[in-house]
Amino acid sequence: MEKPAFQDHYPDHLAHCYGCGRLNEHGLQIKSRWDGTEAVCTFTPRAYHIAVPGYVYGGLIASLIDCHGTGTAAAEAHRAAGLPMGSEPKFRYVTASLHVDYLKPTPLGPPLELRGYATEIKGRKVVVAISVSVEGEVTARGEVVAVQIPDYLAKGEEE
Amino acid sequence: MEKPAFQDHYPDHLAHCYGCGRLNEHGLQIKSRWDGTEAVCTFTPRAYHIAVPGYVYGGLIASLIDCHGTGTAAAEAHRAAGLPMGSEPKFRYVTASLHVDYLKPTPLGPPLELRGYATEIKGRKVVVAISVSVEGEVTARGEVVAVQIPDYLAKGEEE
Repeated sequence: MEKPAFQDHYPDHLAHCYGCGRLNEHGLQIKSRWDGTEAVCTFTPRAYHIAVPGYVYGGLIASLIDCHGTGTAAAEAHRAAGLPMGSEPKFRYVTASLHVDYLKPTPLGPPLELRGYATEIKGRKVVVAISVSVEGEVTARGEVVAVQIPDYLAKGEEE
Repeated sequence: MEKPAFQDHYPDHLAHCYGCGRLNEHGLQIKSRWDGTEAVCTFTPRAYHIAVPGYVYGGLIASLIDCHGTGTAAAEAHRAAGLPMGSEPKFRYVTASLHVDYLKPTPLGPPLELRGYATEIKGRKVVVAISVSVEGEVTARGEVVAVQIPDYLAKGEEE
């Protein structure tokens, strides 16, 4: 059986996110896991995640980068602290800024592979670099500046 | 009756985009129109477009900025050329890069208002600045670097 994903450790009240919440039945429910020093997420777009015929919608790519970025930020923060992902204190992140460079059109059909790692961990901030590839070819690159979720948004965290 | 939106002028084969395609029944179907010198798009997130309880998913905000950005780029290019949006030649754009700064959490419930305008029009490139606000308060700002759609993606344009 596959190891639990980063998102499987999110507490229930933070598991409704459209991109990565396991409790959002309408959402993308992405899963991110370590593969060595990189965090990997694989997602197969649905037929309606289209931009122009044959290619993936850029907003979907941005959404995947966003949620894989905050998940990777949480995992990197735990790893930097020498703590497993499910342990206390839980580090949870929101996106302060998102940048995506669309290098070429992304073919619609095959799974997308996102690979990410922290380029900076400082205080409450983690910067994550992410590549998006299809069948081995990188079609987009992203950067997520993630910050620890403010207390008023994380309330209920310990429930 | 309301004036046609920028997206209503897209030819059918370019009207399947998940964010702005009028023919994508699963998509967001955003509509952008001029309001003086700014292009405006209003969109009410659905309940499942959630990040953490009470707030809008950032990937949705990125998606709205993306599509309002390319729509605004097309409208700005037509206006710069002194041509109405529905006339020939049609200018259509794809996103080369997308940047979003999330200034504060965006409350989920009320309509979001996106306002955009070109900060640069040069050759095949249009740069669009966009603000996202809820009930008059700006919660996010974005920038879209849009480029004219390559011919191989735009094929069928004149059909």
